Amino acid sequence: MADINSPVEIGVTTGPIRGSRKVYVGARTGSGIRVAMREIDLEGGEPSVRVYDTSGPYTDPEALIDINAGLAPLRRDWIMARGDVEAYDGREIKPEDNGQLGPDRSGGVPQFPNAVKRPLRAKAGMNVSQMHYARQGIITPEMEYVAERENLGREIAADMVRDGQSWGAQIPTIITPEFVRDEIARGRAIIPNNINHPESEPMAIGRNFLVKINANIGNSAVASNVASEVDKMVWATRWGADTIMDLSTGRNIHDTREWIIRNSAVPVGTVPIYQALEKVGGVAEELTWEIFRDTLIEQAEQGVDYFTIHAGVRLAYVPMAAKRVTGIVSRGGSIMAKWCLAHHKESFLYEHFDEITEIMKAYDIAYSLGDGLRPGSIADANDEAQFSELYTLGELTHRAWAQDVQVMIEGPGHVPMHKIKENMEKQLQVCGEAPFYTLGPLVTDIAPGYDHITSGIGAAQIGWYGTAMLCYVTPKEHLGLPDRDDVKVGVITYKLAAHAADLAKGHPASQVRDDALSKARFEFRWRDQFNLSLDPETAEQYHDQTLPAEGAKSAHFCSMCGPKFCSMQISQEVRDFAAKQNSSPESFLASEKLGADTAEASRQAAIKGMEEMSAKYREIGSQLYVGAGDREHD
Amino acid sequence: MADINSPVEIGVTTGPIRGSRKVYVGARTGSGIRVAMREIDLEGGEPSVRVYDTSGPYTDPEALIDINAGLAPLRRDWIMARGDVEAYDGREIKPEDNGQLGPDRSGGVPQFPNAVKRPLRAKAGMNVSQMHYARQGIITPEMEYVAERENLGREIAADMVRDGQSWGAQIPTIITPEFVRDEIARGRAIIPNNINHPESEPMAIGRNFLVKINANIGNSAVASNVASEVDKMVWATRWGADTIMDLSTGRNIHDTREWIIRNSAVPVGTVPIYQALEKVGGVAEELTWEIFRDTLIEQAEQGVDYFTIHAGVRLAYVPMAAKRVTGIVSRGGSIMAKWCLAHHKESFLYEHFDEITEIMKAYDIAYSLGDGLRPGSIADANDEAQFSELYTLGELTHRAWAQDVQVMIEGPGHVPMHKIKENMEKQLQVCGEAPFYTLGPLVTDIAPGYDHITSGIGAAQIGWYGTAMLCYVTPKEHLGLPDRDDVKVGVITYKLAAHAADLAKGHPASQVRDDALSKARFEFRWRDQFNLSLDPETAEQYHDQTLPAEGAKSAHFCSMCGPKFCSMQISQEVRDFAAKQNSSPESFLASEKLGADTAEASRQAAIKGMEEMSAKYREIGSQLYVGAGDREHD
Repeated sequence: MADINSPVEIGVTTGPIRGSRKVYVGARTGSGIRVAMREIDLEGGEPSVRVYDTSGPYTDPEALIDINAGLAPLRRDWIMARGDVEAYDGREIKPEDNGQLGPDRSGGVPQFPNAVKRPLRAKAGMNVSQMHYARQGIITPEMEYVAERENLGREIAADMVRDGQSWGAQIPTIITPEFVRDEIARGRAIIPNNINHPESEPMAIGRNFLVKINANIGNSAVASNVASEVDKMVWATRWGADTIMDLSTGRNIHDTREWIIRNSAVPVGTVPIYQALEKVGGVAEELTWEIFRDTLIEQAEQGVDYFTIHAGVRLAYVPMAAKRVTGIVSRGGSIMAKWCLAHHKESFLYEHFDEITEIMKAYDIAYSLGDGLRPGSIADANDEAQFSELYTLGELTHRAWAQDVQVMIEGPGHVPMHKIKENMEKQLQVCGEAPFYTLGPLVTDIAPGYDHITSGIGAAQIGWYGTAMLCYVTPKEHLGLPDRDDVKVGVITYKLAAHAADLAKGHPASQVRDDALSKARFEFRWRDQFNLSLDPETAEQYHDQTLPAEGAKSAHFCSMCGPKFCSMQISQEVRDFAAKQNSSPESFLASEKLGADTAEASRQAAIKGMEEMSAKYREIGSQLYVGAGDREHD
Repeated sequence: MADINSPVEIGVTTGPIRGSRKVYVGARTGSGIRVAMREIDLEGGEPSVRVYDTSGPYTDPEALIDINAGLAPLRRDWIMARGDVEAYDGREIKPEDNGQLGPDRSGGVPQFPNAVKRPLRAKAGMNVSQMHYARQGIITPEMEYVAERENLGREIAADMVRDGQSWGAQIPTIITPEFVRDEIARGRAIIPNNINHPESEPMAIGRNFLVKINANIGNSAVASNVASEVDKMVWATRWGADTIMDLSTGRNIHDTREWIIRNSAVPVGTVPIYQALEKVGGVAEELTWEIFRDTLIEQAEQGVDYFTIHAGVRLAYVPMAAKRVTGIVSRGGSIMAKWCLAHHKESFLYEHFDEITEIMKAYDIAYSLGDGLRPGSIADANDEAQFSELYTLGELTHRAWAQDVQVMIEGPGHVPMHKIKENMEKQLQVCGEAPFYTLGPLVTDIAPGYDHITSGIGAAQIGWYGTAMLCYVTPKEHLGLPDRDDVKVGVITYKLAAHAADLAKGHPASQVRDDALSKARFEFRWRDQFNLSLDPETAEQYHDQTLPAEGAKSAHFCSMCGPKFCSMQISQEVRDFAAKQNSSPESFLASEKLGADTAEASRQAAIKGMEEMSAKYREIGSQLYVGAGDREHD
């Protein structure tokens, strides 16, 4: 990517993902809403497969991409049509918003050329949150968009036998706009979409929808620049990030965020306390409610769709973290803990929570209630500090809902597998089924460099149990800032974890893509196999490392076994042989009865064998098996 | 690695893994047995951490490594001392053993210079299996070695509170040689160690021991050479492979295997039917029991420690696979299916099973009963074909045990998360708790190029449920042959999955390394963090990409947050602050009572809020929540 000298040099990746094309599907309600999807065409007369598409206009060859202008405001008309918002003169940008005491922008980030000067907010006394509309029985275009988007493939799959273990999730066969409205009204799902970010395509986060993933990007004080962050945002959404969080710290936070939001087709989240801290020179004790509030307004006007607010880190919980192996690992959590201790006062976020909610509802910003006391190591998982904070997040959820403001709850972190389920169960119980949004969790601490995997294992599990959105972890976690390649690996890893969770929960159409890919694999349609995969480029590249010839892509073998020795091919021969030997495949299959009888006889023999051994074991046990008394632990 | 022109040019990686050194721990029985371990020394007076070591003499700077001579025969004296074996003139090597019709070795593999001409076997009427000794109440040196090896760190951890959910596994606090004997006698664990592979260090595979991993290597007909396979073997065990399987096909199978076994400090498994098929020119129908039997003897004399035998693919089950999405994906399974159909006869492996067992017990080769009908796609998971075969494997387990031959059972494959547990439960039930040895399973089909991860997710789960050994999957799975880098990524991924399973099962000392690493992380001991990780090289390299200066390795910050903004540092400050504010840390911690009360109040408020909302919801429900009737699926 180009270094940034002038804005026009910001480069991003555009064009379709190989083997697929952008399609727009009209909502079945006939409202004229068109939902973007990605269609993968297959060879040999196989039906094409449509997949969920988070990439925005960047993969549409028809779309005009101008990073200096930003994306078209897809939702602007919907927002204006409701008649409950007003444009006003926005807060003036101050040098300290970019971490600068003077107007100097040297070494910094150019201002976004097309920044909005007159943002929108709710008219006095109005509430523009999707939850508010939902609770009034109103189905918004955003809800309709989400319904269409989530229905992907469900018509094809309608005849399939529903499978899966949903742990109490209630996933309908077809998603109706009314279902979306109901889930939003109950607080079981959110559509994060600030009225000042009309460029975003509506998406839902909730246990009864597809599991979503978030990708973190952002400058830090020691590295990164705006060009690479905008590039990473486009790159992350190309591969499937459903939302992104801009976690920038250091200088130029305001301008970096403006570039990102104006060009993002997915919701953008932030942690406002990071910027507030920069405004007080990094000294946590000097934070005030006024500075924080001002930062919320600043970001609200820019269009941030959800705020991480660490209002659950209460003064009384701080001592609980002091005896941990890794203390407080959340940046926001540690800032608030330090503030609370320094002033020996209750957190100003907790104290002013209802005022924060007032701001949220004027822009339709969703809460992402931060888990400032999440465990940072296996040793600290599920401890008192963590769950105490969770209970407070439950209390705050209901306080936010009292004002019809959308809420999701952030979760850990580092948790061994046997303690993951308790996290989900407690969260559902105390947070009234508000969507859970977890970071991993990492299931062991011993693999830095591979924490996308240690966390992917935990993410797939907690996603299955009911977590609505999984925050990705890249291979660089704990070690450094992710680059472009790390972002992609993180996104793909979480995409596959989320998909594995969808399969296990029994989402109606989730297996369509697995089946299409497996069929392509069995039939040696190599290109289809690549194109149906989450990362066609890597799949093809790996294949080509051993068999680079173009002909190998239609060859009925691969490099693992070679031409003579392919089980897939033999399996085909078995099928053909069977078809020839029998008048019809049906009569061949009818011989399964014989197989079932054989299997049952084997099963009986095995159980009899076990019983005999068990008896023999008991008989000679008193002689031989004496010293084994320490096997008491179960 | 050097290409092979002459044997002396085979290069392998030697020397300690950075930050650690080889130690030999004497068995506490005082028998003189010395068990190899790896010790990681830490900074700042922290106690060093010992970890399980599969790397063999290659990481010992004192050891003389000569690939042309092979490793020293560690177990030779133990084997001879039992007085139940005899040396004899081994079977003569034929050209077809290397896939050659004439004596020409062109383009092939040089013969191993130090090949054993007079292998060992049991004297007539004797049984040299560890299970046989165990059932007679004999504790062998192999069992003693295993006990010491598995006890790693358990003294340190003896005071730790036991944690974990073991799903019926019975893991003792301290492993005694008697416990090992008992587990072997019951068939709940195996020690695979052919008397003709005395170079191997004994290790146990069983549900009550640490979870193990296997790495597959081997030539295929289109790629690889012996130098790179020997290198991969050493490389895989360096990073933690507990066993390796040589899955070579094509030419030079015999010689390749000899190079590998003579230089392997871990047990080596094979699938003999692969070589038998080469001997009949790749035509499955031409396989005979005689050719197969001869291949077993050939490999037994070389020292293969476990054989995958697909004796569960019975004629009657073949039709069950014909209607699958991906048919039969096991190479061995498809060969046997084709043979059965072509002859319309029962599998010769099933028919001659007890004769195979006779051979196994004369060399102490363990069965790895192959799952030839494992599912190759999500669609085929847990189907009738798969479980029918499993029942037959259960029957065969008891038949092998009747002759005191060690057995483990191979498992799938491709299984969505919600169907994994059923695999483990059925296996335990019908196979009498014989160790389960699974390939992954992959929890989705849609991520070729990332199947180390899709399968690592399933592997961690099934390992937690009770699988004793996890067969690795590399990023190249389904696409090509793994190279050196792929092997490492596969091994590390499976090592972390196995460790996550150990943690979740509650292995007594498994958390020691996590805690040491997390403490190092919290205290900014970067070098310790790298050295304690599964892959120190990658961890350091990732760190250095952002902060390459040597000083950054003692810096109290990292590139993610920069110097001003580190939560770990703030957390330390919170601790220091707390210590200063209170007369003692104890009185500070005593204020937790306040925290607990606050949390309880929050929890009550949350539950009250939920009840109120629920009531409100019921009240207005009849008006608004009508169209949601399709939410019937759970």
